[in-house]
Parts: sequence; C-alpha cells; structure tokens
Amino acid sequence: MKRVLINELVDVKEEVILLKGWIHKIKSFGKFAFVFLRDKTGIVQLIIEDEELIKELKLEMAVEVEGIAKENEKAPQGVEIHVSNIKVVGKTYYDLLPFTINQKKIDASLETQLDHRTITLRRPDKRSVFKIQEEIVEAFRRYLKDKNFSEIHTPKIVASGTEGGSEVFTVNYFDTRVFLAQSPQFYKQMMVGAGFESVFEIGHAYRAELHNTWRHLNEYVSLDVEIGFIKDENELMDLEEGFIKNLFTHLKDVCKSELELFEIELPEIKEIPRIPLFHVQSILLEEYDKNSPVGNIDAEGEVLFSKYIKEKYDSDFVFITKYPASKRPMYTMPDDEYEGMTKSFDLIYKGLEITTGGQRIHDYEMLRNNMIKFGVNPDDFGFYVESFKYGMPPHGGFAIGLERITMKILDLENIRESTLFPRDLNRITP
Amino acid sequence: MKRVLINELVDVKEEVILLKGWIHKIKSFGKFAFVFLRDKTGIVQLIIEDEELIKELKLEMAVEVEGIAKENEKAPQGVEIHVSNIKVVGKTYYDLLPFTINQKKIDASLETQLDHRTITLRRPDKRSVFKIQEEIVEAFRRYLKDKNFSEIHTPKIVASGTEGGSEVFTVNYFDTRVFLAQSPQFYKQMMVGAGFESVFEIGHAYRAELHNTWRHLNEYVSLDVEIGFIKDENELMDLEEGFIKNLFTHLKDVCKSELELFEIELPEIKEIPRIPLFHVQSILLEEYDKNSPVGNIDAEGEVLFSKYIKEKYDSDFVFITKYPASKRPMYTMPDDEYEGMTKSFDLIYKGLEITTGGQRIHDYEMLRNNMIKFGVNPDDFGFYVESFKYGMPPHGGFAIGLERITMKILDLENIRESTLFPRDLNRITP
Repeated sequence: MKRVLINELVDVKEEVILLKGWIHKIKSFGKFAFVFLRDKTGIVQLIIEDEELIKELKLEMAVEVEGIAKENEKAPQGVEIHVSNIKVVGKTYYDLLPFTINQKKIDASLETQLDHRTITLRRPDKRSVFKIQEEIVEAFRRYLKDKNFSEIHTPKIVASGTEGGSEVFTVNYFDTRVFLAQSPQFYKQMMVGAGFESVFEIGHAYRAELHNTWRHLNEYVSLDVEIGFIKDENELMDLEEGFIKNLFTHLKDVCKSELELFEIELPEIKEIPRIPLFHVQSILLEEYDKNSPVGNIDAEGEVLFSKYIKEKYDSDFVFITKYPASKRPMYTMPDDEYEGMTKSFDLIYKGLEITTGGQRIHDYEMLRNNMIKFGVNPDDFGFYVESFKYGMPPHGGFAIGLERITMKILDLENIRESTLFPRDLNRITP
Repeated sequence: MKRVLINELVDVKEEVILLKGWIHKIKSFGKFAFVFLRDKTGIVQLIIEDEELIKELKLEMAVEVEGIAKENEKAPQGVEIHVSNIKVVGKTYYDLLPFTINQKKIDASLETQLDHRTITLRRPDKRSVFKIQEEIVEAFRRYLKDKNFSEIHTPKIVASGTEGGSEVFTVNYFDTRVFLAQSPQFYKQMMVGAGFESVFEIGHAYRAELHNTWRHLNEYVSLDVEIGFIKDENELMDLEEGFIKNLFTHLKDVCKSELELFEIELPEIKEIPRIPLFHVQSILLEEYDKNSPVGNIDAEGEVLFSKYIKEKYDSDFVFITKYPASKRPMYTMPDDEYEGMTKSFDLIYKGLEITTGGQRIHDYEMLRNNMIKFGVNPDDFGFYVESFKYGMPPHGGFAIGLERITMKILDLENIRESTLFPRDLNRITP
C-alpha cells in the first residue's frame, strides 16, 4: 500500500490507507483512544479501539498506521482515521521527554531546547521557522536565477582573512595554518571578473567574534550577491528592494499557515527609504537625543531609527547609505560627490542590520593605492589584486544574513531560534 | 539605454543598442577591425571603423559598446554590430596574458591555469564546465523539492569526526579544538528524526586526505540526501536512479551547446544494474584476472568493472551493493539475508565512484551495540546517539560528489577542472 501524507488526506475519504509518522498526542479512555499522528506535512486524529494496542503506544514513537479515512467535521481538518493496525517502526528509549512537544507552551529554556535540538524541531511551531527559512532561500535563488545570475560555490578554506582583522578562525591544513572564510567577498568579486558577471552564493560564513549576543552567530548562512557592469550602488539597492518585495509575496503565498502560527502579517513593501548616514545621525540626535559613534550608528541607534522610519514612512526597512571610507573595507568605492564617503549601504530591518553592501573599487591601481592608504600591503592579497589586472568591470554586491532575516520576519528574540544547529562561543553541539 | 545581452541579439536587428562585455579577439586591418565582444551569454562580432579607437583596444578590457545590430549571414550567429562608440569601463594592466583565452587550445599546464583561475574561466570552454555543474545542482534540487524534500543547512564546524578516522581537519575554535565536517551524515540523519523526514543538503565537505590524485579534493561540494520511513536500500537506489535519468534529460534540454562543445552525447538512462560486491569481485577475477582487496574493489577494479558493465548492459552506471559490515561505517544497517553484509551501495560512473549510500541503523540499542562492536564508545557520539532515543524511523540516504559527477559527465581528466577554486595538498590559492 502506498503511503498517504497527512496533507493529502482531504482527497482520500472512505478508503483504506497507510500513514507514517510520529505519535504526537494520546488521549486514552481505556477501551479507546484519540491519538494524534504527526508527519512532515501535518497532524491528523486517529481513533483506536484496541486496548492492547493503546497500551503499547508511547509519545514520539515512529509508526506506520493502517486505517480508513472518514469525514468528521469536529476533527481537525475535517477527517479522522479509524485505525485497523499500527506497526511501531521506531521505538523509544526515554523515561521522560526533555520537554513537551504537543503543548502550545514549551517548558524549557532556550539552552535546553538547543541541547535537544532534534526534539525541539518536532514541535510544529519550531519546524515552521525552518519552512520559512527554506522559502527565503528558494525566493532568493529564484529571483536571481530569473535575472540570469549564476549560482557559485567558492572555497571556505582560504589563505587570508577577507576583511583583515582578527575575527577569523584558523584551520590546521596539513603543515600550514589557513582560515575559514569570513565571507565569499573576494571570490564573488573575482567570479564577476571571470566573466560570470552576476553571481550569487548560498553558503556558510565564519566569524570568530567573541560576542555572545542574541544577534551573533559564529557560523551562519550568507546569501551573497555580486554584479558586474553596474552604474552605481543604487542599482544594488534596487535589486535588493526587488528581492524583498518578491520574498514577501512568495512567503504570503506559500507560508500562509506558518505566518498565521506566528501571528505575522507581512506588509506590502513599498519603496524602501535610502538615507545617508550623516542624516541618520542628525535625526537620532534631534529626535531621540541619541549620540552615535563616529561613522556609524550603534545597536540602540538601529532600533531607534527603525522606529522613526516606521512612524514617518510606514516601512520596516531602511537603507542607510554613504558610510565613511574609514569605516568600510579597503575595497569600497569612494563617493566622489561626498568627500570621505563611500558608495556603500546597510539595510536595517526592524532595528537590525541584515545586509551590508556597496559598489567596489574595480580599477587595479586604485585598489592597490587604497590598500596602501589602509595600511595593508597589496601583495598580501596577491591573487585577489592580481585578478584586477585583466579588465575588471564596475561592480558591487551585498549579502543578507539568512538567520537574521528569518528571525526578524518571525519576530523571534534570539538568532539561535532561526538556526538549525547554532555555533557560538559556548556551543559546538549538537 | 538598456543593455542588451548577446544571446538576445537575434531579436534586435537594425536598432541602436548597448552591449557590455570583454574584448575577446581583435582582428585589425588598420582602418577598420573585426572585434569579438564576449559577455556572460555569448560572443558577437563588432565592426569598428575608427582608427584611433581600434588602437586603444586591448584584449580582455571591460567595455560598453554602442552600435547598430545588423544581419549578416557570414557573421557568427547571423548578426554583427556596427559600432558607434566604445567606452572602456575596466582597464587592463598586463603586458602579456598568462595564456590565450580566444584560441581553441590553451597553451598552459593545468597548474598554471589554476594559478590564474579567473582568467581560465573567461574561456568559453572552461566556463561551460560550470554551466553544466550549476545545472546539475539545479536538477538535484528540483528533483527532490518536487518530491517534498526539505533543503537544510547543517554546521560544518563539528565537535567530533563523523566517520572516525584521522582524515579530518582541525579548527581552533576559541579555546577548544574542533573539526571540519567530513560530511553532514550525522546531521542529515538527525534531521530525518527531527520530523523533516526527507532532507537534502548542498554544501561543503572536508577530507584531510593525503592523496593528491586526479580524483581527490580536500574541500568538495556534497549533494546529500536522507529519507525516513524507507523499506530498504533499494528505495534509495530507485531515488538516485530517478535523479540520474532526470538529470540527463535536464542537461540535454538546457546545456545543448555546452555538451556539443565537449562533444558529449548523453545516453538515455535505462535501469542501472545492481550487483552485489562479491559478484563484482568474482567477475573481475574471472573476466580480467583481477584480484580485489578484501571487502572492496580498488580504483583499477572500478575501471575494469565499468568496462564490463558497459559491454554487457550498455550502461555507464552500476550500483555495487552489499558491502561487508567491516568496510562500512558503524551506522550501516546489516543485511539479514547475507551474513556479514550491509544494506549499502556505491554508484560507479564511468569507472569512478561518485556515490556512497545505504540504509542506516535506526534502533537506539542496535546502534549502541554496533558502535561497541566497532570499538568505539557510544558516549563519544553523545548527541547523535541520544537523538535515536525518541522514535527514529527506518532511514537511509546517499551523497553524490558534485565535482566528480561533473568531471565524468564531461570526460574531464582531473577533478580540479570541475572545481572553481580547488583545495588540495599543495593548493590553497587562489
């Protein structure tokens, strides 16, 4: 007998069918029981009238169920299964579950939940986070593929840190010491120059940051984009704005029940405001009496400014543009119109930076000179700088932190909730 | 003016258009020149009649070209561009290109090509390898998504080696020493148990192997699959066979010109033979007087056996099944019908193993006991073993090496040719 998935049940009434899944809930009345079965597509009510069988069942067993699907208006989804046979295919070996899977509230701290990550994920609400996340990735990929972008896979074992700085993990690679890539920055630029022109990568990035906060991970998934032959950084913001619009439409379309579960109503995305950093800093000072660090705003500033944008523009998103050269990496394109500024931007979403992007320097000599100005030796970035000798077109790009955008869409409180198996200062398991 | 891509030119005759790309070839006749322009979609012939302009042009410059598209039967693709203006947007700074980009033959060793990887990739033939590779990934993802699989991203920084053994890179993670994942094996199994049931991952895997051969990489992209509620390993082979069929149809459909360039005619995939290892070993001995190592065949055996299968079954693929338990990882499901054997398989393609797969042990106690039999302490794999306590369904999976299948489809000689930026014993750059 071919297995029927629970979300296919609407079509198979009055037939003998085979279901597979886990025992989600047991309401036993002795001689009969209502049992809820959970598979990857949903939950259905089983009716079991075999006393011996009922006694054998334990929460979270993996089972195969034979029975007849019958309409019942009172049952969830309007259908219930009158069971003729249950076969246990995955036994349980626990005394107590670490926390409840079938109750609305979860009776455990986030740390305990993460310690038992695969149990947590059995909860439909926790599972939903990753359905949303998967569809963010799908939307990103579709949006760019439709625009003729190539998907690439660049190395994560690299010979030099990308952004300089010390926040990089070292790997013992045979007899040498190498690094885990902080981003695919150099490689995505090089791939533009290699004639691919417009590329994206969905891959891990590594930051050896010592912060252990609600918004930092040491290993995360970066949605990276890089495009050649651009006019300026506005083209990049246009592209990202287009993606965000497309993403929200896609999520409303395919993740209706997940969004409902989290009581999230995704707004229609209009134009995302683009405001230069120096304006942002003035607004923060004038409106909130908030001082900002030189050439940036801090985490509190991001929250306050998002509040301001929400009130003034009714937008959850805002691009902050024109960061000073001193606060951006050495490859950032200077802005000729504004002395000391660059053609760069961040995207802030509900008070959190989810993107950094900008136009890059594409001229070999200009790049070398800028590196020297930054106090680094261009020869230390040999193959990267070398690749600019052979006709590098104007280009730029951006990266979106997958876990961050997931967290913000669902209003989660901690980035670990939107990470399957988070890695932080204290956690390398499970 | 909006840019037109070269593959869109068929639709825009007699119009003034804007093209962007690189100077691929210059045939100068003094007062006029035929110049070939290359963008990410193809190559087109430009006609330039401005002597000064012609002198300025250098191979591989990045340019923007304005001109009129005119029909010309003799020109490649039946269209040529009469240029009114060229703007250099990406200057060159080289004396000599490291090797030719616009000739059929490449005048450089593989090592030199890899040293200048971004230049190599400008060659249409080298670019084609990665068009094929991208479509392999696309086909894999589509095939599984259509079957309700979830795409996952699991950590590559892990606390213990997956397969045991010493071929693992260590990472200095704050104050501890951790590892780079050799495969997502444990995690994909755990995700099946976490209720996702059927998952796939496209991600990096790391092997600290000391071999520096034509078929080994130290960092590669693994196409991983894992499914719950299976009957046995034949279901896994059915799935992979279905994928291979689907893949070949897809490639014939979308990579026609790339396959032609490599003179590859992809065969229609019929049923892929499934032959137990002990039969394979007997055949090798009888037909080729070839001895095999205990419980396996060696690289030469793979080549000879593929030859045999090609002649006997007219198939480029063969599943070798029923490997002995002693030669498979501790989590491999024993085969009750054949003492000492397992429900495992390899897929050999044109003489090279491209897949290892099998059913896994899903019972907690059986897994613990098997680990002990293998001489490992189950407690050393704490969270993995722990996750089997809560109703783990029968499951299994497989993994395909992306660079390997790409190499074999195109009959490339070295796996580095099908890797954007290969990592091996001696190479960590570019």
